[in-house]
Amino acid sequence: MQQNANHQVYLKSRPAGIPQAENFSLRETEVPRLEEGEILIRNHYLSADPAMRGWISDVGGYWPQIAIGETMRAFAVGEVIESRRPEYEIGDRLMGIFGWQEYSAATDKHVLLKVADADLPLSLYLGVLGLNGLTAYFGLLEVGGPKEGDTVVVSTAAGAVGSCAGQIAKLRGCRTVGITGGPAKVRQCVDEFGYDVAIDYKSSVKLDDELQAACPNGVDIYYDNTSGPISDAVMRHLGIGARVVICGTAAYSSWNPWNAGPRPERHLIVKRASMRGFLATDYAAQFPEAVRTLAEWVRRGKVRYAEEILEGIEKAPESIQRLYRGEHTGKLLIRLPSAEL
Amino acid sequence: MQQNANHQVYLKSRPAGIPQAENFSLRETEVPRLEEGEILIRNHYLSADPAMRGWISDVGGYWPQIAIGETMRAFAVGEVIESRRPEYEIGDRLMGIFGWQEYSAATDKHVLLKVADADLPLSLYLGVLGLNGLTAYFGLLEVGGPKEGDTVVVSTAAGAVGSCAGQIAKLRGCRTVGITGGPAKVRQCVDEFGYDVAIDYKSSVKLDDELQAACPNGVDIYYDNTSGPISDAVMRHLGIGARVVICGTAAYSSWNPWNAGPRPERHLIVKRASMRGFLATDYAAQFPEAVRTLAEWVRRGKVRYAEEILEGIEKAPESIQRLYRGEHTGKLLIRLPSAEL
Repeated sequence: MQQNANHQVYLKSRPAGIPQAENFSLRETEVPRLEEGEILIRNHYLSADPAMRGWISDVGGYWPQIAIGETMRAFAVGEVIESRRPEYEIGDRLMGIFGWQEYSAATDKHVLLKVADADLPLSLYLGVLGLNGLTAYFGLLEVGGPKEGDTVVVSTAAGAVGSCAGQIAKLRGCRTVGITGGPAKVRQCVDEFGYDVAIDYKSSVKLDDELQAACPNGVDIYYDNTSGPISDAVMRHLGIGARVVICGTAAYSSWNPWNAGPRPERHLIVKRASMRGFLATDYAAQFPEAVRTLAEWVRRGKVRYAEEILEGIEKAPESIQRLYRGEHTGKLLIRLPSAEL
Repeated sequence: MQQNANHQVYLKSRPAGIPQAENFSLRETEVPRLEEGEILIRNHYLSADPAMRGWISDVGGYWPQIAIGETMRAFAVGEVIESRRPEYEIGDRLMGIFGWQEYSAATDKHVLLKVADADLPLSLYLGVLGLNGLTAYFGLLEVGGPKEGDTVVVSTAAGAVGSCAGQIAKLRGCRTVGITGGPAKVRQCVDEFGYDVAIDYKSSVKLDDELQAACPNGVDIYYDNTSGPISDAVMRHLGIGARVVICGTAAYSSWNPWNAGPRPERHLIVKRASMRGFLATDYAAQFPEAVRTLAEWVRRGKVRYAEEILEGIEKAPESIQRLYRGEHTGKLLIRLPSAEL
């Protein structure tokens, strides 16, 4: 690749379900020239997130749909190399919505966090100290409202968000039950992420029986990333006053046609329970404080994380399909050569 | 009927769907003799409520299932005619869970409210000043959390609960949209209950279009009593931060097999919305204050109500099926001859 060029991954075609490598393409453009009020960021790490499926789907979401030909929206961490904004200096390390590209001309609305500490790897600011950790943090603490002794069930329990949610629940004195797929992840849930119980939904003969055994007094908080048959089973085990945190819908590759399932209303009345959806970005004003707390937990080994790093922007197009296959461990992200500088 | 006997309606057979008259039977027993700590109540009015379907269904609910042969559980208002509890005197008028019977031996756990005022008809304490009004009050105010200018959609908008919820929302400065069935109820919603817009779902060609026209800025609170296709349509029109109050599931006559429908999770994330179920009886400690407020609204004509009164306990068995046919207007209840004394 040529230096002083900007390599970008753009949306080539709209996927019917899970975005595949062939829905994207790589292109070379010029490094953007700044307008007044912009900063130029050289990205070091690019994120791959399940939510990206929704960003390019044909069903409306919380952010504008990405057009064909547009550079793929993505969280990234990078370094300011030119600034036309007084609040950012050259050398500042930022996490934000900088796209699947090497260089990004950004305004303050793209910036989600200024990285304050230098002692932790920069890649973490896309995972446990980035949107994944923040999603776990605000979803569990603000939406879930854990109380000591609560039984907290987490789906995709070994994932970048789920593993963090489970550990925060544990730090709050809750009993944690993780649902994950396969014996390796079950072991990881218990050994690495400290779940009291881990259930392998893939080998489960009857998930209801395993949930009943793991949650004999009912589920107080269900932190859900799936919205599918796993959720349907957990809903049957809610306790009185349960809070269901709706974080993601990984069970489905598309919402066109809309997915159906057992109705939740009767469970919600009988158990006086709630379901609530949220977006971590709605809590952006509280990010610096939350990241300080998460970073301290990481330093003390109270919150552990796993990362799987793909090398080079050429790997970005295939990263979403890898996420949905669930073969990776923890946070999936892409390292750019500039990270080594 | 013989005097000094207690006539009761008991459950004769378990219904498959909506309870029918033939699922109940009338019997004559003795007026109960009090044990220590009990009070004897002569009921004046018996209530018919949609929730009774769930109380006798074969799918577990929030209260123990009523056994075959057991007197039907019901809200009722009556008068204390004998007391072995210091806090109740002969002549006290009480609302509580006294059953479909003329006389009830009750303890304080059956009593939900002591009627404080004598200026309003006693029957209202089963409707707008009873569980229906209280369900509307706590569901809208505590679960819904209305703010001035909110758009509030109510299903079964002309019903005993819905009509009250709509009027309380209006009193809180909300714009109210009622969904009801048939032109007479549409007129009643607008003329009697003050809805800004009333939608006839029975004549609606496309409910989505009517909701879009009625709620151009999205729905802030959806007070739902149905849990069926009406809800599915409203969910597509939620605004950011919407609260869905799950009050009842009148669209379904049975939950065995469990009912299915479009999944709510993706709406909840995209709109950062919540669904929450509740039972008014969980707020029993706040009933006296809420009834004082409701009574004042009724006196000033700020909350209007409709009643349809059936005469005699013999009409109780058919009352539930009448509720689900939706032919009645407002609160359906049964007057006993003692109400005239």
